[in-house]
Amino acid sequence: MAVRAAVAGASGYAGGELLRLLLTHPEVEIGALTGNTNAGQRLGALQPHLLPLADRVLEPTTPEALAGHDVVFLALPHGQSAAVAEQLGDEVLVIDMGADFRLKDAADWEAFYGSPHAGTWPYGLPELPGGRAALEGSKRVAVPGCYPTAVSLALYPAYAAGLAEAEAVVVAASGTSGAGKSPKPHLLGSEVMGSMSPYGVGGGHRHTPEMIQNLSAAAGERVTVSFTPTLAPMPRGILATCSAKAKPGVTAESVRAAYEKAYADEPFVSLLPEGQWPATASVYGSNAVQVQVAHDTAAGRIVVISAIDNLTKGTAGGAVQSMNIALGLDETCGLSTTGVAP
Amino acid sequence: MAVRAAVAGASGYAGGELLRLLLTHPEVEIGALTGNTNAGQRLGALQPHLLPLADRVLEPTTPEALAGHDVVFLALPHGQSAAVAEQLGDEVLVIDMGADFRLKDAADWEAFYGSPHAGTWPYGLPELPGGRAALEGSKRVAVPGCYPTAVSLALYPAYAAGLAEAEAVVVAASGTSGAGKSPKPHLLGSEVMGSMSPYGVGGGHRHTPEMIQNLSAAAGERVTVSFTPTLAPMPRGILATCSAKAKPGVTAESVRAAYEKAYADEPFVSLLPEGQWPATASVYGSNAVQVQVAHDTAAGRIVVISAIDNLTKGTAGGAVQSMNIALGLDETCGLSTTGVAP
Amino acid sequence: MAVRAAVAGASGYAGGELLRLLLTHPEVEIGALTGNTNAGQRLGALQPHLLPLADRVLEPTTPEALAGHDVVFLALPHGQSAAVAEQLGDEVLVIDMGADFRLKDAADWEAFYGSPHAGTWPYGLPELPGGRAALEGSKRVAVPGCYPTAVSLALYPAYAAGLAEAEAVVVAASGTSGAGKSPKPHLLGSEVMGSMSPYGVGGGHRHTPEMIQNLSAAAGERVTVSFTPTLAPMPRGILATCSAKAKPGVTAESVRAAYEKAYADEPFVSLLPEGQWPATASVYGSNAVQVQVAHDTAAGRIVVISAIDNLTKGTAGGAVQSMNIALGLDETCGLSTTGVAP
Amino acid sequence: MAVRAAVAGASGYAGGELLRLLLTHPEVEIGALTGNTNAGQRLGALQPHLLPLADRVLEPTTPEALAGHDVVFLALPHGQSAAVAEQLGDEVLVIDMGADFRLKDAADWEAFYGSPHAGTWPYGLPELPGGRAALEGSKRVAVPGCYPTAVSLALYPAYAAGLAEAEAVVVAASGTSGAGKSPKPHLLGSEVMGSMSPYGVGGGHRHTPEMIQNLSAAAGERVTVSFTPTLAPMPRGILATCSAKAKPGVTAESVRAAYEKAYADEPFVSLLPEGQWPATASVYGSNAVQVQVAHDTAAGRIVVISAIDNLTKGTAGGAVQSMNIALGLDETCGLSTTGVAP
Repeated sequence: MAVRAAVAGASGYAGGELLRLLLTHPEVEIGALTGNTNAGQRLGALQPHLLPLADRVLEPTTPEALAGHDVVFLALPHGQSAAVAEQLGDEVLVIDMGADFRLKDAADWEAFYGSPHAGTWPYGLPELPGGRAALEGSKRVAVPGCYPTAVSLALYPAYAAGLAEAEAVVVAASGTSGAGKSPKPHLLGSEVMGSMSPYGVGGGHRHTPEMIQNLSAAAGERVTVSFTPTLAPMPRGILATCSAKAKPGVTAESVRAAYEKAYADEPFVSLLPEGQWPATASVYGSNAVQVQVAHDTAAGRIVVISAIDNLTKGTAGGAVQSMNIALGLDETCGLSTTGVAP
Repeated sequence: MAVRAAVAGASGYAGGELLRLLLTHPEVEIGALTGNTNAGQRLGALQPHLLPLADRVLEPTTPEALAGHDVVFLALPHGQSAAVAEQLGDEVLVIDMGADFRLKDAADWEAFYGSPHAGTWPYGLPELPGGRAALEGSKRVAVPGCYPTAVSLALYPAYAAGLAEAEAVVVAASGTSGAGKSPKPHLLGSEVMGSMSPYGVGGGHRHTPEMIQNLSAAAGERVTVSFTPTLAPMPRGILATCSAKAKPGVTAESVRAAYEKAYADEPFVSLLPEGQWPATASVYGSNAVQVQVAHDTAAGRIVVISAIDNLTKGTAGGAVQSMNIALGLDETCGLSTTGVAP
Repeated sequence: MAVRAAVAGASGYAGGELLRLLLTHPEVEIGALTGNTNAGQRLGALQPHLLPLADRVLEPTTPEALAGHDVVFLALPHGQSAAVAEQLGDEVLVIDMGADFRLKDAADWEAFYGSPHAGTWPYGLPELPGGRAALEGSKRVAVPGCYPTAVSLALYPAYAAGLAEAEAVVVAASGTSGAGKSPKPHLLGSEVMGSMSPYGVGGGHRHTPEMIQNLSAAAGERVTVSFTPTLAPMPRGILATCSAKAKPGVTAESVRAAYEKAYADEPFVSLLPEGQWPATASVYGSNAVQVQVAHDTAAGRIVVISAIDNLTKGTAGGAVQSMNIALGLDETCGLSTTGVAP
Repeated sequence: MAVRAAVAGASGYAGGELLRLLLTHPEVEIGALTGNTNAGQRLGALQPHLLPLADRVLEPTTPEALAGHDVVFLALPHGQSAAVAEQLGDEVLVIDMGADFRLKDAADWEAFYGSPHAGTWPYGLPELPGGRAALEGSKRVAVPGCYPTAVSLALYPAYAAGLAEAEAVVVAASGTSGAGKSPKPHLLGSEVMGSMSPYGVGGGHRHTPEMIQNLSAAAGERVTVSFTPTLAPMPRGILATCSAKAKPGVTAESVRAAYEKAYADEPFVSLLPEGQWPATASVYGSNAVQVQVAHDTAAGRIVVISAIDNLTKGTAGGAVQSMNIALGLDETCGLSTTGVAP
């Protein structure tokens, strides 16, 4: 019997990517699709690439529309998920693709989001230590942010293995879909094509405390993260360049061994063969994470690069992976490590 | 029992896209992968987006390597397919993704390709009149060129319905993957990003006689095609802008009716709702063809736009679709009309 | 003594490009810069590439702000230029970069723009027959549209020489800056990167009657134009593919001779050597027009390709060129045929 | 009397950009243009954007061809500059745009380039302490690498002012022209569009010792640099994200003050107003350097971002700036801080 899934916020990039994945998920039947400003419109006009759903019409996001489903995915603006989830009841699996329930520390939440903390839900990054167990059977999932997904998977093995000092430096490049579908001048094609630019420099990006939370948990001590996100002239993809000082005695071999061990059995994370480096094009549209490590002996640092598709593993694919675990399905069901390239 | 498929020419863009599709085809098991200059290399180094096949090693393209398969796909340079096909025997389904067996007229072949004509195989564009019947049970398929796929599907209904004069004008923009993976200065990223440029102007492009062949068959008279291909700054996709003078008495309604009729039951061709226009991004990675028509009364022309992914419907997806028909499988098996966007 | 120039509409793409050119114009001193919604802002925040003007502040567009200049450039929304020009008086050179005064036929204007016709000013395309004479000493100039610039220069020599039938077919690809700086969803980088899409198909684009006006004047008879604009994934540039049936007796030589004659002495139009084709990258940021011709004997058509930078020759460079002529300066003053590539 | 300049290596990206700049340099007359594999070809076929030089023909790179000039620019492969320079004599200004004479430490040279050290020439980065004095009247100039230009100008003020610990972390994104015009598979448009990828990770990039040399000189102590370059889907531009731990007592104000002081009188370096961040699009085709600083108090780091055009300030513009100083011309002659955008 199919899992019946509703998507609240089906007209945005996260919602569209989720629907793309659910369309080929063998266990899922796509139920209600809702929106706010776009309610009443054909999906074909909003998501013209989703031809099999072109004639579906968006409903307003109401408890009635979302009722009667086994899973409800929320792709809503910050601060709206708690109220919707409450109305859905405890028996429905609710997967929040927004930020509301990611942070454990209420002070962090308030400092970075400027609103009261809604709480904390099980965190949808199964590759982290204890990550799968937290999701099994859960009725609530907080899908990680796209940057924290790329960065946590790049660095946690180094911290879990005690190889890295507790001060990480991360510079990540993201495709423009990470900034959403709401039209703003600096996101115009004319502005972004041919340009690299940073934003949220100096510690201000909202994903920073989420990275710190994950890496600190792995390290068993407070890890600081100097995080600089940049906007790259491409629609999708995150390339995260992450580094930290190596602890005494660390070698290239010990670094590689830690990552081999961490990812030996992970279906979606590939530690690439030595000499091959991640590229966002290679994970385009896939749920794969490509990782590669280096030990810079002159600078005394461990350097780890990861590449993900921000909309797939970074958002919608991560959401489906967590859904699979929560429902007891095969974790890889409906997901792929095959990218669309060139 | 799975269909066992070999791919000769697995390191190029056509071969890579074919493998991407075969990886999710429920009836196919991927057998031998061969190459020439790249024989001996890991596929992971050549096609880093095909992570599930990363550890496969390319064999040289020999009869021995290709033996023992139900289907052999050929993605070889022009002129090499005949010899390979002959060695494979008559019982194996051979699908040629190159040009060797597309043209019926030997003089056309020799004029445009400069070598002796190898013959003609059943043509892998099932949407054309009689197209499916020609493929059912066939052991040989000539996959159409990418431009002829986009242009023939844009214009044949107008010709089949007797709406258009026999002089077509086509300008098409293609992503750079259509030019292949062999490095040439004008295909460098530095050259193509930010640039639109034409090539093969004035009737010289090799796909021209193939378009004429298809449209003339639909029209029942010789159709000329003024074809100008252009290289667009994107990896994939073809947008074909096609027009012809409307015959007397033609109206916007009669044009639309002809296309509605032609494509009412086609699983991969979508005549878009009025007011919505095709975009290559909407068919990225999918086997869909988006079509829209207009009747320009001031200029007296029927204008038809089509968008395809040159590597999917334009090459590898078309090949899989033809394989499905030739083998008696569901025509849509392993293929999708869902694009990867944004 | 320097020519003192004001720019009304300095925050948009046309205004920004004009300022870029005026900054290196040896005879011009940049005076007032005005805007509407952006009045009061630093130019450095609006046009961060114009570092020498970063500390200039936009004034509101009022007669007072624009008074006291020798030249006033108008980069305003449609319909606003007439009122501003009237207030400036007859002694000031007013150069309208908008559409208001381009069309001679009031019915055409009203059909395509839906508002009363403001009149007709001397047309700023000096390369057309009689074009320079119309501009010399003029106090009013209507700068051509970007597409009509590319298309008229591609086709007028064929019509002026009586080589082409009176039915032209044009497909042009434009960079996204042609659509302006006002944020709309379909112009987001996420949407345009990787995508080609048409718009205004079937005769609806507002630049169509302007092309017809120019080509009909050259031909001495009414020329129809089937015009399809497409949006290309690049910030700048127009590649226009233009064709018409060749009249009887036309040869490749007679076509080439007509273009050689037309452009032998033009400082900004280059008929490329045979075998070389225009590319928008080659005219990036320059006032050059690259043109190449072919005679497709099989299809019986003359095919002409032109490439311009839509913001330079297509808008602001054309405006400066016309200013130079109107003021009696060297026509090439402050303009270049050197592009920025790669 | 004009400065007569020859360019050895005129067919590549560095040579082409240099010619673009020299074409508008009021004191320079362009003399011999030489090449190796491209000798005998029209420049119009090799650099189609340089229309004013289209009919110039490349000569072979010989002492005879380069004789009789006041300045000779060398854009040659590594290891060839010393022999050519020797033949030119001591009275000719020789400006090497390659790497041969940048490094002071022969062991560094040999470790990173694998060939004998040719020596050290005055270093063409006048903004560094003592930089101008070293160039005045010099007959030899080593133009800095593109990455070291961006990184040294980002970080040297922090080191010169004693604000930063001696361990820098740099992640930089470069446009593809930095990789040159020689066709390689990974530089194809199909590969780079839509993709971010790293290379030379872990300390292996040849520009690393040059950065260390510059920053160590500013700091007065050995500075290590963890440098990760990435390839971005754009033709031009470098965005460098640089950081180092702040020394005790450092504040946002002291950081900003150091940069204000360092760049108050620099004609090409702009410390942007607070709240505005560099973007490569803003310096496209210009000699400008945009810099912005942040103090991340939570991570305890100074973060500095710089943006340059790798071909202009990063190569050819830097070469012209150094030529101006060496010859006693105005340093800004023929150079601009106006970018081409959008």
